[in-house]
Amino acid sequence: MGERLDVVVVGGGIRGRMYGEVVREHPRGEVVGFVETAPMTAEALGSDFGVPVRESLEDLLSGLDRVDAVIVATPDFAHREPGLVALGHGLHTLFEKPLATTVEDAEALAGAASPGTHVMLGFENRWNPRFQTVRSALRATDQVFVAQRASLQDTAWVPREMLSWSARSTPGWFLVPHSLDMAMWLSGARPVEVFARGVRKVLSADGIDTWDRVSASFRMSDDSVVTLDSGWALPTGRPAVFDFRFEVETATDHYLVDVDRSGVVRVGSDRLSYVGESGTDPRGRLRGAPVEMTRDFVDLCLGDPVDVPDADHGLLVTRAVAALHDSLETGQNTPITH
Amino acid sequence: MGERLDVVVVGGGIRGRMYGEVVREHPRGEVVGFVETAPMTAEALGSDFGVPVRESLEDLLSGLDRVDAVIVATPDFAHREPGLVALGHGLHTLFEKPLATTVEDAEALAGAASPGTHVMLGFENRWNPRFQTVRSALRATDQVFVAQRASLQDTAWVPREMLSWSARSTPGWFLVPHSLDMAMWLSGARPVEVFARGVRKVLSADGIDTWDRVSASFRMSDDSVVTLDSGWALPTGRPAVFDFRFEVETATDHYLVDVDRSGVVRVGSDRLSYVGESGTDPRGRLRGAPVEMTRDFVDLCLGDPVDVPDADHGLLVTRAVAALHDSLETGQNTPITH
Amino acid sequence: MGERLDVVVVGGGIRGRMYGEVVREHPRGEVVGFVETAPMTAEALGSDFGVPVRESLEDLLSGLDRVDAVIVATPDFAHREPGLVALGHGLHTLFEKPLATTVEDAEALAGAASPGTHVMLGFENRWNPRFQTVRSALRATDQVFVAQRASLQDTAWVPREMLSWSARSTPGWFLVPHSLDMAMWLSGARPVEVFARGVRKVLSADGIDTWDRVSASFRMSDDSVVTLDSGWALPTGRPAVFDFRFEVETATDHYLVDVDRSGVVRVGSDRLSYVGESGTDPRGRLRGAPVEMTRDFVDLCLGDPVDVPDADHGLLVTRAVAALHDSLETGQNTPITH
Amino acid sequence: MGERLDVVVVGGGIRGRMYGEVVREHPRGEVVGFVETAPMTAEALGSDFGVPVRESLEDLLSGLDRVDAVIVATPDFAHREPGLVALGHGLHTLFEKPLATTVEDAEALAGAASPGTHVMLGFENRWNPRFQTVRSALRATDQVFVAQRASLQDTAWVPREMLSWSARSTPGWFLVPHSLDMAMWLSGARPVEVFARGVRKVLSADGIDTWDRVSASFRMSDDSVVTLDSGWALPTGRPAVFDFRFEVETATDHYLVDVDRSGVVRVGSDRLSYVGESGTDPRGRLRGAPVEMTRDFVDLCLGDPVDVPDADHGLLVTRAVAALHDSLETGQNTPITH
Repeated sequence: MGERLDVVVVGGGIRGRMYGEVVREHPRGEVVGFVETAPMTAEALGSDFGVPVRESLEDLLSGLDRVDAVIVATPDFAHREPGLVALGHGLHTLFEKPLATTVEDAEALAGAASPGTHVMLGFENRWNPRFQTVRSALRATDQVFVAQRASLQDTAWVPREMLSWSARSTPGWFLVPHSLDMAMWLSGARPVEVFARGVRKVLSADGIDTWDRVSASFRMSDDSVVTLDSGWALPTGRPAVFDFRFEVETATDHYLVDVDRSGVVRVGSDRLSYVGESGTDPRGRLRGAPVEMTRDFVDLCLGDPVDVPDADHGLLVTRAVAALHDSLETGQNTPITH
Repeated sequence: MGERLDVVVVGGGIRGRMYGEVVREHPRGEVVGFVETAPMTAEALGSDFGVPVRESLEDLLSGLDRVDAVIVATPDFAHREPGLVALGHGLHTLFEKPLATTVEDAEALAGAASPGTHVMLGFENRWNPRFQTVRSALRATDQVFVAQRASLQDTAWVPREMLSWSARSTPGWFLVPHSLDMAMWLSGARPVEVFARGVRKVLSADGIDTWDRVSASFRMSDDSVVTLDSGWALPTGRPAVFDFRFEVETATDHYLVDVDRSGVVRVGSDRLSYVGESGTDPRGRLRGAPVEMTRDFVDLCLGDPVDVPDADHGLLVTRAVAALHDSLETGQNTPITH
Repeated sequence: MGERLDVVVVGGGIRGRMYGEVVREHPRGEVVGFVETAPMTAEALGSDFGVPVRESLEDLLSGLDRVDAVIVATPDFAHREPGLVALGHGLHTLFEKPLATTVEDAEALAGAASPGTHVMLGFENRWNPRFQTVRSALRATDQVFVAQRASLQDTAWVPREMLSWSARSTPGWFLVPHSLDMAMWLSGARPVEVFARGVRKVLSADGIDTWDRVSASFRMSDDSVVTLDSGWALPTGRPAVFDFRFEVETATDHYLVDVDRSGVVRVGSDRLSYVGESGTDPRGRLRGAPVEMTRDFVDLCLGDPVDVPDADHGLLVTRAVAALHDSLETGQNTPITH
Repeated sequence: MGERLDVVVVGGGIRGRMYGEVVREHPRGEVVGFVETAPMTAEALGSDFGVPVRESLEDLLSGLDRVDAVIVATPDFAHREPGLVALGHGLHTLFEKPLATTVEDAEALAGAASPGTHVMLGFENRWNPRFQTVRSALRATDQVFVAQRASLQDTAWVPREMLSWSARSTPGWFLVPHSLDMAMWLSGARPVEVFARGVRKVLSADGIDTWDRVSASFRMSDDSVVTLDSGWALPTGRPAVFDFRFEVETATDHYLVDVDRSGVVRVGSDRLSYVGESGTDPRGRLRGAPVEMTRDFVDLCLGDPVDVPDADHGLLVTRAVAALHDSLETGQNTPITH
């Protein structure tokens, strides 16, 4: 492979557009096409990026001379089809997390990658400097992990307004993959069993038939405990659209990470808010964790040695979250198969 | 009963002494004796309070003309004997929480109270103004409870240095009663089943054979979820000897209570610490949540209408925490009997 | 004097009513009359307290058999007249802070007290447990004071909505007495000179002709520096109606006091707010710093040894704040006379 | 100029080494020599960077074929000599802040730059994303600035241990340039007069004859007020070696920036600390505000349009801080000449 990566993005929503913009800005990346079914979005992308936009990946690929990589940014439950096409063509593929929302889909995808092809999972928090800092500090000494504990929640704006497909997802699928991936990345341990409880009181009453809130307890392979609370029914008066606090307890140290607090508070006439880092630096260059992640995907495909979450990891997270949902239904502590 | 309450305190440790001091300062209370087996402690109490100190409650009572009430401040697992004596004599009794550390003990105690006798459980956080504030605010409107989530932990100094009997207790018995009681008091719901995981890595390696850390998930009678994390192996560099954060999520509101942060931070040459409210006001009068609780016990026994946790509540908490420990052993989601 | 204190309250606004309620609840206090000129307020007070309400203190006193003490709760600039009447009658007097808003008034009042009469200034932050805690900690060792630094500000709601007389006051008179008193109380030093700057941009544009914001720098008698920032034009989206942060730096320690953060955060559908301690405890008894302060005034007048800010202290604070306003006008570093 | 920038670094301390490492890593930068007088430091630099190290800049330049730019990283008071040499040779120059510690030096340096030569001042906080965020947000609407308020302090470790030349500097020279530059950058206003007080109690008692602490009040060209508190005698138990909090108050908004809180807290056996972002990303690339600043200097010199603080700005800051020190001596409100 040469010094340039030609990339197709599947799904032109908020995330798909972000991926496209990062690849376009990358000195060695090029966006060569989008897959998008909504006509207005498709037209906007085509005009902004000056590339073909098609309704199916197969279609798009058949019309392009060269494609090196695909980024799958469809809704969580719709990764299988474009993923199999991309992998079937032997293309490097970056999947928006989670890999899939059924074990069957995840197995199909994990099994479809050819040797030499990079499959990367978009667990973007690994590119958040706060988590990188914690991991470096933990790695600096031998650590006996005791417990990890996280709250990762969204306000009700997310399932009610931002997502059109929230009734087809849950906080388990939409949020827990982030915090579970982080617990695994920080400790190096795998989840071996999970117990979960959930509440369905708020959104379902308004016709969005899904869990408001889940609380999951994992036993890890190192016999530490991980407690993950996620929901998407927090009140909209929050200073940020999400709430993310993460704690690590080892035999010697206690780390507390405030992920949603940016360090900048603005109080206006109506409310207090946390002002997040602007998406571009003063010179107009993109920045932020998903931006760095996407750059690393380009660099990885072009041969740089980058440590990223792979397909097997994505499959394991999907198995764990599927077991979490089984536990929600059965009320039983549930083993996570490997 | 007249306008004075004559009180005996069983157990002359940190807590027993505190109870004695509050009763002594109360305009209508009088300390008339202590039960304490350690000779030096007994001698100090006798000299400070000018009252008899005996090795058994039965013994002490037989030598006193009048006793109206008993405060049981023995170690958690040693409430049964003095409690049964006190209740057998028809005396009002305040128990340091929890009521007992076995369901059998708790049932025996709850069954031993005579009608007209007050049995009160010392869940002191109900006297913390922050929790009172949250409860008032919650009570001001109809609330649909979704979830509660707490971390209540101690540094390893507590089981290693402060308590001589930590190997005979657990974070489940020593800490969870506080947070579970609070979750019940705030929501009005009862725990109906519990799943718990625990870790034994740190203290047991040093010969203190107990859990370092437990994480418990409760289903409540209103179908809300309560997640309680407690341990006593946090690093001693914490700004306070404990860590207590409590959250309540309802369909409309999210409350976050920082219990350990006093609002006063001191940075010295070595470390940052939270400076807790001094135990006396500028005029030398005792203050703080356990002080107010003890005053309310005196007032209750003298006939004031005070709302306090009673024996049945204490029994329910003991049942729930016993079920928590069953779950730790069996790995099963465990019903809590009523 | 006997075992009861008969008290008259001058001014029936928010503060006057609060004073009345505390005195009424005090086992040894009695409210025997109010002075209030607004007819509707007067009628409500008369009916709630069952006592005479008159338009002038002289009038009220002439109709009462016995009065022991007066509480002056008129607007800041209107303390002189009722204060001179009360002191002229030899009555104990509690003044809402500041003593007066001119040096002439303050001198007149400070000079009018008879020996044996208690004159107390209502610097209520001395009854805030957080400040008491800091003071106790500072007093525990010898301290070399380096600097103190405070922000005490209100949102624009206070001068725009809460006060009818904001154009006749300033942040210097309304707020700085609190923080300056605290700096003096904590360190034991007196202010000896002051330099101040101010801004008039916001409120004056809306017809409230006063300073929005002042920043004052004091040299103290111990050669430490005190920097006090106060304003009343903060945006109304703040989680509390005020902002109060106080720092003390000594040669060995740094204290940071968050006064406005209650430890309880509520997030609702619109905004995040700090939920302040409710004004009554669960048994309906009044509580809070101004309540404790008022109780101490009653106890002081009845002979208890209570350490309170007196008339000379009030005069010194008024001199210092008057010098602050001189500095605002002249742009000069200004000595504070004693 | 071609596509490469050959850079000399004057001063091989912590900062000089950092500058060298960033230039070395920059794809278009090259370090071609160091100036350093301490023999061991000089030897280490020579061996690490493989470039000549000389005792004087004149000397070094005479032995090099090509130099494009100089970075002056000598102690604050020692910028004049290397600066004049660099500018005399027509080289682009980056000065560690402040430009100089006397107005005379600063004027000489500001006057020595040739047209077409870039002179940049290293006010690194402009490259801190939190401040960039605030500035973007402020720029998004018309703002009437009311006040700015900052605390920027170091622990006593800095003057006692880190710096060998602290007795030749002050918190005014070492710290205030940062916060004053920020106040100017955020508001666009210039300081027009300054009043300052200081304390000399702690360090001078230990033979470091300098101010412990200064508090400065500026009137700005837009009639807003800026209050800057800086010192370097904070206790060493702080969670970070510095304390930096910055506030901006406009007619409509209040911004609060916590600069020293990283969002990651570690509690160990001894203390709580804020864990700062590691200096390299997971792929080993340098990161952080001074790194981005240094990169921008290289890009600026190579022709990129980068907005940076220039020599005139550096001169103005030096004039303002010199006036601050005049005020410390005279006790007068002091005009700042332009």
